[in-house]
Amino acid sequence: MSQYSPVRFVNVRLEGDFWRERLDTVLSRTIPSQHAKLSEYGYLDSLKLPQPPPPLRFPRHANGFSVQVFWDSDIGKWIEAASYALSHRRDAAIEAEIEAIVDDFEKAQQPDGYLNCWYLDREPENRWTNLRDNHELYNAGHMLEGAIAYYETTGRRRWLDIMERYVAHIRRTLGPDAGQKRGYCGHPEIELALVKLYRLTKNRDHLDLATYFVNERGAHPPHYFDIEKAEREKRGQPEQRYNYPSYEYSQSHEPVRDQTKVVGHAVRAMYLYTAMADLAFELNDAALKATLETLWRDVMDTKMYITAGLGPSAHNEGFTHDFDLPNETAYAETCASVALIFWAQRMLHLDLDGKYADILETALYNGALSGLGRDGTHYFYANPLESDGSAERWEWHTCPCCTMNVSRLVASVGGYFVSTADDGIAFHLYGGISTTAAIAGTKVAVRETSNYPWSGDIKINIDPETPAAFDVKLRIPGWCSGWSVTVNGAKVDVSSVDGYVTIHRTWTKGDTVALDLPMTAEKIYAHPAVIMDAGRVALKRGPLVYCLEEADNPGGFVQRLKIGRDAELKTSTRADLFGGIVTLSAEGTAIQTGDWQSLYRTKRADEEPATLTALPYYLWANRGRGSMVVWVPEA
Amino acid sequence: MSQYSPVRFVNVRLEGDFWRERLDTVLSRTIPSQHAKLSEYGYLDSLKLPQPPPPLRFPRHANGFSVQVFWDSDIGKWIEAASYALSHRRDAAIEAEIEAIVDDFEKAQQPDGYLNCWYLDREPENRWTNLRDNHELYNAGHMLEGAIAYYETTGRRRWLDIMERYVAHIRRTLGPDAGQKRGYCGHPEIELALVKLYRLTKNRDHLDLATYFVNERGAHPPHYFDIEKAEREKRGQPEQRYNYPSYEYSQSHEPVRDQTKVVGHAVRAMYLYTAMADLAFELNDAALKATLETLWRDVMDTKMYITAGLGPSAHNEGFTHDFDLPNETAYAETCASVALIFWAQRMLHLDLDGKYADILETALYNGALSGLGRDGTHYFYANPLESDGSAERWEWHTCPCCTMNVSRLVASVGGYFVSTADDGIAFHLYGGISTTAAIAGTKVAVRETSNYPWSGDIKINIDPETPAAFDVKLRIPGWCSGWSVTVNGAKVDVSSVDGYVTIHRTWTKGDTVALDLPMTAEKIYAHPAVIMDAGRVALKRGPLVYCLEEADNPGGFVQRLKIGRDAELKTSTRADLFGGIVTLSAEGTAIQTGDWQSLYRTKRADEEPATLTALPYYLWANRGRGSMVVWVPEA
Repeated sequence: MSQYSPVRFVNVRLEGDFWRERLDTVLSRTIPSQHAKLSEYGYLDSLKLPQPPPPLRFPRHANGFSVQVFWDSDIGKWIEAASYALSHRRDAAIEAEIEAIVDDFEKAQQPDGYLNCWYLDREPENRWTNLRDNHELYNAGHMLEGAIAYYETTGRRRWLDIMERYVAHIRRTLGPDAGQKRGYCGHPEIELALVKLYRLTKNRDHLDLATYFVNERGAHPPHYFDIEKAEREKRGQPEQRYNYPSYEYSQSHEPVRDQTKVVGHAVRAMYLYTAMADLAFELNDAALKATLETLWRDVMDTKMYITAGLGPSAHNEGFTHDFDLPNETAYAETCASVALIFWAQRMLHLDLDGKYADILETALYNGALSGLGRDGTHYFYANPLESDGSAERWEWHTCPCCTMNVSRLVASVGGYFVSTADDGIAFHLYGGISTTAAIAGTKVAVRETSNYPWSGDIKINIDPETPAAFDVKLRIPGWCSGWSVTVNGAKVDVSSVDGYVTIHRTWTKGDTVALDLPMTAEKIYAHPAVIMDAGRVALKRGPLVYCLEEADNPGGFVQRLKIGRDAELKTSTRADLFGGIVTLSAEGTAIQTGDWQSLYRTKRADEEPATLTALPYYLWANRGRGSMVVWVPEA
Repeated sequence: MSQYSPVRFVNVRLEGDFWRERLDTVLSRTIPSQHAKLSEYGYLDSLKLPQPPPPLRFPRHANGFSVQVFWDSDIGKWIEAASYALSHRRDAAIEAEIEAIVDDFEKAQQPDGYLNCWYLDREPENRWTNLRDNHELYNAGHMLEGAIAYYETTGRRRWLDIMERYVAHIRRTLGPDAGQKRGYCGHPEIELALVKLYRLTKNRDHLDLATYFVNERGAHPPHYFDIEKAEREKRGQPEQRYNYPSYEYSQSHEPVRDQTKVVGHAVRAMYLYTAMADLAFELNDAALKATLETLWRDVMDTKMYITAGLGPSAHNEGFTHDFDLPNETAYAETCASVALIFWAQRMLHLDLDGKYADILETALYNGALSGLGRDGTHYFYANPLESDGSAERWEWHTCPCCTMNVSRLVASVGGYFVSTADDGIAFHLYGGISTTAAIAGTKVAVRETSNYPWSGDIKINIDPETPAAFDVKLRIPGWCSGWSVTVNGAKVDVSSVDGYVTIHRTWTKGDTVALDLPMTAEKIYAHPAVIMDAGRVALKRGPLVYCLEEADNPGGFVQRLKIGRDAELKTSTRADLFGGIVTLSAEGTAIQTGDWQSLYRTKRADEEPATLTALPYYLWANRGRGSMVVWVPEA
């Protein structure tokens, strides 16, 4: 089969309302406000080495935040997000801000290439002595992703040069050879960044280093984290006070190829699998791909929220046991859903199978997008599926990883829509985009027009400069039945294979494809082993998971509401809400609270008929405090 | 009204099967095994000062436990529990073990009376510099309770003398006078211990010190914990790494008399309120009593699990907001329910009102008793109301406070059954006891015979040496309706006032009272604001809360089960279970899991009729791992 590659986001123009609005918000509000927060909380100051002694040191972050080992990564991730934004709309002020940061990094970089501001400021003698906890390689990974993005957008390679020197230092320091530390990072991230650097530079060393990090992980006992711990003890270095969880936490409990269950910290797992998928692709490594398929099934069959949220537990920010998906306490970190999108996209390009695109889409519209408030300046770190009203979006966080993960995702979301091969184009997502690609020896302009995700009525214009025979592949979402396709108005009799229909023909300018994806509201049930959802139902329409929020269902906790077992789901277009959305409604009952005097009693609460109104989950918690529930009990 | 005082447990003989079995288990298994654990984990070694340097220091606790600031308290609490056990059955071996501990404390005590082994070993120069975090007064309180109990049982006052010297040191060190530290403990406990010491010695100084600690709490800004923190900083003393939660955590956010909402760490709150109630009694302090009544209502109306578990959150080991009572993640620490029993007993003796005895009984039979495994050597710290099967009782804990709290409770449980006044006797609990008391100028032998809590058929023999006129007060539990009383076979026409019926007559030897408390299984509903329990029902019979456990409902998670809305509750006497208990059963449905292939689907799960069997909650998790639920969804 032809090898499909994603059309980069810079070459995809977002024209549909849904993503255009989110993109505009991120460009105009999120990126600038994030820079302001990095400044306000001392992140930018933390790069200015040497630091003055306390109390002059970081005088401005007196609000409970203090410098963390991972701050370099947040700055790197902001530059990455900002660079994606600049690709849409250059901005001299933002570029000057980035250049100022690069100035600081340049000054901080050591003659041997080392560049980690936390260590350089605090414990320069201890660098590379705690890969398990202290995120040095993780930071390098995000800084590298930032440098690549900034270079790709602006052509300025000063920071990329800095980072290449740093990577060279890392390659000299870590590895299997004599005199090297045979380690890898407790938090995977640099691996996928190195593959990006390889793809940019074609320098095989970078791919080899990523391969080393992945292959070394959990291999060759004694465990590297034990070796470095013993060395720290020998040096009398103070140890972290907390007890490190099991090595499952960092997916380093066994060689990655032996892993069959998804464990540990959810973001670490997703970044690792993304890198593994990159390597499976670059190295054509069937064993690695098979491992990933096993891990994918494990997540999908037993560990994913319906929102594509991952990791139920705040304790390890990650996975627990099969079917453990509590709703109110769901951690479901925004970053984990963003990273699931990365992984899904890699899997999709290993095998053009709609099951990967389905999850990519679910994560995008639900678990990831819910992390960003409507105003573009408030966030969720955890994305629970139920709230008693106490959950509120925050402006900044001790660990603001999610803020820049969601902004870099939205700023580059166009890159997930279409892929091309020599002989075809594949549409994974819909929502109104246009792009131009070289296919079958000609330049083809395509435009997909729709009001997706509100409607599945999709038009696609295919305009090759010269007539050419190639495939147009259209993803048929897993939630859709009864779909149909026409070309120039004529029904095409074609069936979907692995979630895609393929229309092969000689295309000429002016050809139009119409794809009808009937978007029916539906009730979804969870496997009864998900004990929290037994007897409950979730509402979906198209790619969107819905929720009951108190703002639409006033009168107290929405947990008082039950949906009729046979209630019909009605859709309403609501121009008055969030610029125009589709809500769902159904008949049910509401437990009455009026006559309650005590906490417990022997008389059942009265119930009255009630109409339930459901809102897309990604929009929750944008109208003040209020209760919310995704899994609604059936009456 | 006459003043009732509890008959001490040493004067109450437990004769009924239910408590006799628990008491025997605690005497023969729990107390000895706890000493073995204190030895195995290095607690006893930690008293031997000066300690050898590492690694010889505590060579035996290489299993993840390390010395904690509160270890002295655990040893004190074990001696208290052991002393209560010795009251039932003297034991030379246990007494020798206690004497060996007293030897160590005696050697460790400083010339000025100071006695805290953690500080003396680690930071002798820093004593009394961190009352907020380091439990010095808390430890002293538990050691004092232990010393009092040991003295009362054995008449040996060496440890009591040691502790009186320590208390004198504390009185010199802490207080409002010049040169004193005007502080109090972050964890209330010493206050109630000082009242015990006052009652034993009649030395008013002890009552005054307790009063000082209670009155000082949260009063007189700036906050004492801020003052001592500033002093630590001035001295360059290293600060705890964690961020101290708000002062609500330790109920020191405002003067205790101004407090109207129950907040913070649940055990701290209950110990504080117990001491406040002691002081309200001793000082006849109406304002303090009124505060306690307000706090009592706040707990009862909005914050108590149906099991009388307290504190939903592991985060602060305590209270959150009104009606926040999650089931699976319920913290509901054993110690908090034990301490609620202490508080309820004090309230009951401020006002002989059955509402206090009702809660005392609920906590005793449910939230507290569930903390002790059937074998007497396994425990729960948290007592959730739902489990997916992952909860298991443990043998020991980093913080074993609950183990000795439940053993001291059971070893002294007889002390909660009856109270006497000059002119009467009041029965609070039933279950088979006998005692002798001086009432109305004569010696009265009483024997209560019943198979409570399995049956409400209660016989009471009243045998005064000489005929005498006095009150016999019988508690009518809040859960009971349709009760009746006879004296010598003749129905007594009497109504209950504040949960007690009073029979006043001239009693003569051979008089018998029969109390019939119809014990009907009932369905209990929670206020709809408890969102977790909406549409669910709990099963109770008499004082016992029931649960569905997988062992009695095989076939998968019990969360698959629903109870019929109008299902009749049937009771069965089951001689084969736990030495004979009463189970409940009801018809309902079970969600079927057989045909599920994926995590989510659009087809509702099939349901089949099923018979549900419920077990008393206190017995859960004694038959291997398995799921459990208290709040059962209604079909």
